[in-house]
Amino acid sequence: MKSINIGLIGFGTVGSGVVKILQERRKLLKEKIGVEIILKKICDKNIAANRPVKVEKGLLTTNADEILDDPGIDIVVELIGGIRPAGEFLRKALLKGKHVVTANKALLAEEGQALFNLAREKGRSIYFEASVGAGIPIIKAVREGLVANKFQGVFGIVNGTSNYILSLMAHQDCSFNAALAEAKKKGYAEANPFLDIEGIDSAHKLILLTYLCFGRFVSLKDVFVEGISRISLLDIDYAKELGWQIKLLAIAKKSKDKLEVRVHPTLIPEEHPLSSISGINNAIYVHSDLVGSLLFYGPGAGWLSAASAVVADIVDLTKDIKAGLFKPTLNILPDTSIKGLLKIDEIESRYYIRFMTEDKPGVLASISGILGKFGISIASVTQKERKKVGVVPIVMILHEAKEKNIRQALEQINKLKVVKDEAVAIRIEETF
Amino acid sequence: MKSINIGLIGFGTVGSGVVKILQERRKLLKEKIGVEIILKKICDKNIAANRPVKVEKGLLTTNADEILDDPGIDIVVELIGGIRPAGEFLRKALLKGKHVVTANKALLAEEGQALFNLAREKGRSIYFEASVGAGIPIIKAVREGLVANKFQGVFGIVNGTSNYILSLMAHQDCSFNAALAEAKKKGYAEANPFLDIEGIDSAHKLILLTYLCFGRFVSLKDVFVEGISRISLLDIDYAKELGWQIKLLAIAKKSKDKLEVRVHPTLIPEEHPLSSISGINNAIYVHSDLVGSLLFYGPGAGWLSAASAVVADIVDLTKDIKAGLFKPTLNILPDTSIKGLLKIDEIESRYYIRFMTEDKPGVLASISGILGKFGISIASVTQKERKKVGVVPIVMILHEAKEKNIRQALEQINKLKVVKDEAVAIRIEETF
Repeated sequence: MKSINIGLIGFGTVGSGVVKILQERRKLLKEKIGVEIILKKICDKNIAANRPVKVEKGLLTTNADEILDDPGIDIVVELIGGIRPAGEFLRKALLKGKHVVTANKALLAEEGQALFNLAREKGRSIYFEASVGAGIPIIKAVREGLVANKFQGVFGIVNGTSNYILSLMAHQDCSFNAALAEAKKKGYAEANPFLDIEGIDSAHKLILLTYLCFGRFVSLKDVFVEGISRISLLDIDYAKELGWQIKLLAIAKKSKDKLEVRVHPTLIPEEHPLSSISGINNAIYVHSDLVGSLLFYGPGAGWLSAASAVVADIVDLTKDIKAGLFKPTLNILPDTSIKGLLKIDEIESRYYIRFMTEDKPGVLASISGILGKFGISIASVTQKERKKVGVVPIVMILHEAKEKNIRQALEQINKLKVVKDEAVAIRIEETF
Repeated sequence: MKSINIGLIGFGTVGSGVVKILQERRKLLKEKIGVEIILKKICDKNIAANRPVKVEKGLLTTNADEILDDPGIDIVVELIGGIRPAGEFLRKALLKGKHVVTANKALLAEEGQALFNLAREKGRSIYFEASVGAGIPIIKAVREGLVANKFQGVFGIVNGTSNYILSLMAHQDCSFNAALAEAKKKGYAEANPFLDIEGIDSAHKLILLTYLCFGRFVSLKDVFVEGISRISLLDIDYAKELGWQIKLLAIAKKSKDKLEVRVHPTLIPEEHPLSSISGINNAIYVHSDLVGSLLFYGPGAGWLSAASAVVADIVDLTKDIKAGLFKPTLNILPDTSIKGLLKIDEIESRYYIRFMTEDKPGVLASISGILGKFGISIASVTQKERKKVGVVPIVMILHEAKEKNIRQALEQINKLKVVKDEAVAIRIEETF
């Protein structure tokens, strides 16, 4: 075998990056793997648009079947994103005996289980390095590099937009809205940033990391998801004073024989390596039993960064195909010690809580009385100077307590007449 | 092919870890790769010693030829360390058609070029993930995960002992000697810590990272190496005041069409992710053209950590062998834009300099006069309060200057009557 044929579906930003790399590194890649990677066809619904790379007209089509039905194409690269028609394309590619490379975290998070099953059935592979952390080779590292390990937890800053906003708020002392506006201006946030700032994109990636580390697909509805839109500069500043940073963390971790899978703003210790991840960077922190704690860090976006991961996947598949190895090379197995998912109500966590109260005697007593009733004990209290007339922030760090108890206590506290705004509660993570 | 046979040479700490993992994860690995990994023979000069794992007596031998001459053994794992006889064992293994896994950075740094050539000639592979950063899958990440990238530089904290000592000095305000003593007590430093604290071990690993990123083997004598034994608490504290951390950094980076390869204590900005790497941890920071800057972080030592990497290599080779792919799967190519090595005299760097001078008028004028004569300009000066009677430390941050000029200027300054101790000069790195 002297060459391998690729069909690319999706000639957008990352697609253009893939084309650029395959053009400019054609010789390099051929020398490295001894096989020429030939881009045989590119499909996009808009083939007239200007793009940062030039390709021969004959390569372009608007009909995906020209790729999917071509028996000469070995690998289909899907970069259109979204669920439909991407899912149909992937299924058809696998049914036609092709290997698949995709960066489509939403699709894999939603239909991954069925797609990976189909691939196994057909003896084909789905590679998806670009779907988490763009060019950071996290999937390869966990799947192959840590092949003999069992995992206790994976903790990721996997959404660059949210991390950029939180970093900007922390470093430049600006509001959430100002930071979001700046992120849009810089092109780091989309016009509708909902998926990013509300944690959905992080949840998609977390589902894939959970699959990698624990061998099971959880569905989006089983992931507790809370975004960053309620985080205020006040909380970032208070947290900092107490030695914490606020990050949007995607967490999957074992809790005895259960698995917790959740995305939410999280206080992490300032000296933890994840605290130093700023801007649009991503980082994935993995706790494994043989190696211990590992961190993988890099830019979470960028057309060439994601394209670098796609090309690495193509190279891996090319090596497999060249070797005549027409079946998945490395099975992902379920961690059989895990008996199910832990519901968010049942998780135990320390908490940062900010109450906005009237500046009156007895307020602290009422609040701590209710917390005590639910068996929640207070690790530290700081009553801040008032900023609004008559309203004082009280910041508490709570000892580990059950989520359900916290929620019920806060409900009662929020009803107190002396409490002015709804309490802000942010989980603390320090088990890593 | 249902099984693959391994011969292990070296039943020490890491060797025991490999045996333990192959015993305890036998079923897991078999399910993942569809092939059983069988440990057929273990060779060590001392087979009577107590070890943390139990093996059948019949598995043990003191004669390496029982492994090397056995046509039934597919992969030889070499974990004895040192140059001789390890090199002979590796050569013989390759000549006998076996693949090799090794953690031996000293051997690969010294004889890697010849060994890799021999492997290529024989159509066999040498895998060496455990040789840099123990269980951190840095070699796989760079070689496979970043396969399409070209590299501008690699910057590593790759010696856990040195990093532990520097961290302890910084965090607990103790002297180099006290920190070294503590490291020995904890088992993080050997009785003779020379290779670690004088930068040789880092240089060995740097040679391998340079090979990975730039495709060329440099020899140890071409690597500028300076250890940490001259670093004083004074400098760590002054550096911290100015916003820097001192780390023993292994650096290989392109400088126009030349390559700089050096190991030395280095001031890095406090907010750089490498600054947060403390204790015996290792971290490798890679700057690549497609992805940008990446950091890989984890424990730099530990029997199971290194063994995890060895087993990952065994699995990779098993997959290759299973596929009938009896030749290296991924060539490492020389970066042809590099025309040679830049001698240390020719490198340009910013500098931190500490002079210990008499507390007299005109001292600063004499020093800055000499610096000026060599075209070296001063970015900042801090004259510290005296600690010893009559002696004041003057701390300078110099603008970028050629190493040769710095050296000549310091020689003249050291001869001044008002200068009491030899000036301490530490390079600054902020190009990453």
